Amino acid sequence: MSQQPLHVPKGFRFACTYAGIRKKAKDDLSLLVSEPAANAAALFTTNRVKAAPVLVSMEHLARSKGKVSAVVLNAGNANCATRTGDAVARETCAAAAALLGVPTEQVLPSSTGVIGMELDGGKIVAKLPELVAALDGAALPAISEAMMTTDTFPKLASRRVKLSGGVVRIAGITKGAGMIHPNMATTLAFVMTDAALSATAVRRLVRAGAEVSYHAISIDGDTSTNDTLLLMANGASDVKVTPEDEATFAKALNGVLQDLAKMIARDGEGASHFVTIKVSGASSDAAARQIGRAIANSPLVKTAIAGCDPNWGRILCAAGYSGVAFDPATVSIRLQKTTVCRNGLLAPFDEPALIERLREHDVEIDFRLGGEGRGQSTFWTCDFTEGYVKINAEYRT
Amino acid sequence: MSQQPLHVPKGFRFACTYAGIRKKAKDDLSLLVSEPAANAAALFTTNRVKAAPVLVSMEHLARSKGKVSAVVLNAGNANCATRTGDAVARETCAAAAALLGVPTEQVLPSSTGVIGMELDGGKIVAKLPELVAALDGAALPAISEAMMTTDTFPKLASRRVKLSGGVVRIAGITKGAGMIHPNMATTLAFVMTDAALSATAVRRLVRAGAEVSYHAISIDGDTSTNDTLLLMANGASDVKVTPEDEATFAKALNGVLQDLAKMIARDGEGASHFVTIKVSGASSDAAARQIGRAIANSPLVKTAIAGCDPNWGRILCAAGYSGVAFDPATVSIRLQKTTVCRNGLLAPFDEPALIERLREHDVEIDFRLGGEGRGQSTFWTCDFTEGYVKINAEYRT
Repeated sequence: MSQQPLHVPKGFRFACTYAGIRKKAKDDLSLLVSEPAANAAALFTTNRVKAAPVLVSMEHLARSKGKVSAVVLNAGNANCATRTGDAVARETCAAAAALLGVPTEQVLPSSTGVIGMELDGGKIVAKLPELVAALDGAALPAISEAMMTTDTFPKLASRRVKLSGGVVRIAGITKGAGMIHPNMATTLAFVMTDAALSATAVRRLVRAGAEVSYHAISIDGDTSTNDTLLLMANGASDVKVTPEDEATFAKALNGVLQDLAKMIARDGEGASHFVTIKVSGASSDAAARQIGRAIANSPLVKTAIAGCDPNWGRILCAAGYSGVAFDPATVSIRLQKTTVCRNGLLAPFDEPALIERLREHDVEIDFRLGGEGRGQSTFWTCDFTEGYVKINAEYRT
Repeated sequence: MSQQPLHVPKGFRFACTYAGIRKKAKDDLSLLVSEPAANAAALFTTNRVKAAPVLVSMEHLARSKGKVSAVVLNAGNANCATRTGDAVARETCAAAAALLGVPTEQVLPSSTGVIGMELDGGKIVAKLPELVAALDGAALPAISEAMMTTDTFPKLASRRVKLSGGVVRIAGITKGAGMIHPNMATTLAFVMTDAALSATAVRRLVRAGAEVSYHAISIDGDTSTNDTLLLMANGASDVKVTPEDEATFAKALNGVLQDLAKMIARDGEGASHFVTIKVSGASSDAAARQIGRAIANSPLVKTAIAGCDPNWGRILCAAGYSGVAFDPATVSIRLQKTTVCRNGLLAPFDEPALIERLREHDVEIDFRLGGEGRGQSTFWTCDFTEGYVKINAEYRT
C-alpha cells in the first residue's frame, strides 16, 4: 500500500514529536494545520460515554460553524473518564490557537489510548511551539505513525482527481486495531482535500462516504469513546467541486475512505486473515449490511476462518440471528468462490482443496439469498486468533 | 456440584448408548421417558435458521397440546441444514413412539453438534429397542454426559421442595459451551418435575424462569439453530402445585435453572474465569440487563478479565454502547468489591492487590448507576481466552 504515490493536498502541514504521553519513546503527539481554515464535518462515536476531546470537538465545530484550522492529536491516552479531561482538551486547543493565530474553536483536540488515566496537558502545551516550527506538508506519513496504538502498520491513502476546473488531491490517515465497528469505534480518521467544497457538501459527503467504508467494517464489535472521522476541505487548490463534479469527487473520496477502512480491518489485532463478506439478494442494502455485520461479528465464524475451516453452518447460523427475515432454503454460500451451500444445504465440494485455499490471507465469503431482492452490501473484517486474545489481555498492564 | 444429592423426579426414566453418530466412541444417543405423559412447554431458538428437530418439536408440541412422553436426543450432529433432516427427525420419533406405545406427537427429537451433515436416522432407530429396555431413573447422570459436545463437565441440578400437599422433585440437565446467548443458543436443557402442574402453569413458569437464568448468560454472543429449553411436569408425585404453592415452586425451579445456566457460563469454551455482572440503578430491570449483556459480550472486557487486567474503561465503554441512556458521571464500578471507578472517574485503588484478586476464578463486576433508578439484573458469563479461539478454530476439522 505504501508503494503508491502519496498526494498531499495543498495547504495542509503536519508535525509530530514524542511528548512522553505513552511509555514507549515513540512519537505520540501530532499537529495538523490547514491554511486557509477548512470547511469540515465530522462523525463521532455514538457511545453514551464520549471522551472529553470528542465533546470539545463537537462544541468547537458548532461554534466555528464547521471551520477547522488545526487538530491537536495524541496517542497513548484517550483522555476519557478523566477528572481534568475537559480542561486539558480546552487548554491544548487554546495554546495551539494562540501559536497559530487562529480562533480557539477552529482547533480540535483528539486523543486515543487508555481510558481513565489523567492526561497531562502540560506535556502537550510544552511541545506545541516545537511542532508549530516544524510544520511541513511532507510530514503526513510521520503523523500517521505517531497516531498508531496497537496498529502494526501506518495507514494512509490518497487520490488525485481531475475535475472540470483542474486537479484536486484527497489524502487520509487513520488508526484502528481493535474495537472497530460500524457507528464508529476506536478509530481516528482525518481526511483532507484541497478542493473547494461548501460546508453542506462536506457534511453530505462524509456521511455518504462513511456508509460504504467505516460503517462497513468490524473487528470485534466493540465501539469506543473517542471515534472521530473528520473531513476537511480547504479549497487551497482553487478548484471548486461543481454539482457536475460531485459524483467524480465522491467516488475518489469514497475510494480513500474504503482504502483506509480496509487497512483497519486488515490490521485487526492479531488477525491472520482479511475477510470480505458480500451479501446479495436481500430486500434492501440495509438488510444486506445487517446480515454482513452479523457474519462479521460472529466469534464462531471468525475463529473458523482463523482455523481455515470451511464451516459454512456457522455463517448460515449467524445470518439467522441477524434479525433479517429470510428463507434458509434459498441461501447459497460460496467460500473463496467455491460453493459450499446451495438452497440451504451442503453442496458437495473438495474439502482438502478448499481448506488449502482458506490458508490464503484474503478470504471471501459470498452469501446469496435467492428470490427477488436486489439489496447488497460488502463488509470487511478480520479473523479472530489466539493472538487477538493475547494482545487484548496484555494491552494495559 | 456433583457432591450434592440428585433428586430424580418420579416417573422419569433414562437410557443412553453409543450409536456411532460422533466419531469418538462415547455415548451419543439418549432416550428420556416420562410416564405418565408430562405437561410440557419449551422455548426454542429465535434463529431464523431452525434445525429440523426444532421444527418437528414445535409441531409435535402443538399437535399434542403440550403432552410429552419421550425425548430422543443425540449429540455429534445438529441435523440442521440437512436434506433428510425432517424425515430423520420424524422417523426416529415414530420408532420410539411405537416401542413405547405412545402417540408419535408425544415424542420430541433433539440434536446438537455439527451443522450441514446428514444425520443417519437408521443408526438411531437401530439402537432404540436397546434404550427402551435399559430405561432407568438412575441413568440421569449418564444421559447428561451423553449430550455433552465441547462441554468439559456434565451439568445437572436438582431440588426437593415441600409444598402444601407434600414433597416434589425438580431435576434438570443441560449442555452448553460456546454460542450461549440470551434468546437461546446452542444449549439443550431438559427440566423435569413430578409435581402436578397445568399446561398453562408450565408455560408461564418456563418463560419466567428463563428470564432470570438462560436469558441472563452469554458465552460469545452467537445464537444457534437447535436451542431448546423444555420443562416437563408429569404429576407422578400426586402433589399439585396450588396457587399458594406456586411462588415456592417457582423459586426452586428458578434455582435449578440458574444452577444449570451458571454451569454453562462456568464451562465456556476455554474459559479461565467465571464472571458475574451485577447492574443496578437502571431505569428498569430490562435496561439493567441490556447493560449487563453488553458488558458480558464485549470481547475487550472478556480478554481483559482473561488477563486479570482491572481495565474498567472497557466496562464503562461497553455500557456506553449498550443502547441504554445514562449519565456517565453517575457511574460507579467495583471489581472484586474494590471500587475502581466513582462518578465516572478513576477511583484510586491498590492495583497490584486487585490484579492478584482478579486471578481468582470467580470475578464479580458491579456496575452501579447513581440516581433514582431501581432496575437491576445479574448476568453471568466467562472470559475470552486463547483457549477459546483454539477450541473453535479446531472444532470441525
